[in-house]
Amino acid sequence: MLIVGSIVFRVRDMAAQTDFWTRALDYEVREPVKTDFVVLRARDGRGPEVSLDAHHSERVLPPRMHLDLYADDQSAEVDRLRGLGARVIEWDGRPADADYIIMEDPEGNRFCVIDASGMVDWNERRTG
Amino acid sequence: MLIVGSIVFRVRDMAAQTDFWTRALDYEVREPVKTDFVVLRARDGRGPEVSLDAHHSERVLPPRMHLDLYADDQSAEVDRLRGLGARVIEWDGRPADADYIIMEDPEGNRFCVIDASGMVDWNERRTG
Repeated sequence: MLIVGSIVFRVRDMAAQTDFWTRALDYEVREPVKTDFVVLRARDGRGPEVSLDAHHSERVLPPRMHLDLYADDQSAEVDRLRGLGARVIEWDGRPADADYIIMEDPEGNRFCVIDASGMVDWNERRTG
Repeated sequence: MLIVGSIVFRVRDMAAQTDFWTRALDYEVREPVKTDFVVLRARDGRGPEVSLDAHHSERVLPPRMHLDLYADDQSAEVDRLRGLGARVIEWDGRPADADYIIMEDPEGNRFCVIDASGMVDWNERRTG
């Protein structure tokens, strides 16, 4: 049995990235905490964790990997994330009817916020 | 409401990476399929999806982001993944008591297989 347990980000500022990602996803810090590796998890313990690794890695664009965050209210979530220190990335290649908005976290990690308001199994996924 | 909906990999060979990741995680292709973007999901619909994006991005080491895959039987899963075309990466800095084994997929995306046999909420996480 093999599951996607965690998505690991290399970070510069552990405290700042812990603050951003716990708030962005409504996650909490999983104990025990090490100085160079912090695991964040959903408050109900379900779904993938997000781990922060203090060993440095340069950002490269476009990123080889990124997260798609699914939102039930895309514009509200984008506004909320901007309030937490993320910013919206404009991209000329974005189709007018794109269901995604490109953002990056305070350390420049790109992610997308997807309009998932029409997702039929939203409640199951939320607890999934 | 905002959840980790999907982890997106840039791929060169869509068919080969679809084959690897569906088998690695026991996922299936989510319809509809586009030629340049394929979404894989758990067969029970729960947990994060994995998306494959045909737009190219160079690999950089160490990776800024990677997946930690949690295994109930680490050595069995590593063997199984090797059979699917992944390979084990030896690293001098790995502590002797490390709970992870570093691997990379057929296109060189690094990930870790974590010994999660002691995870108390395994059953909940599996369906999570």
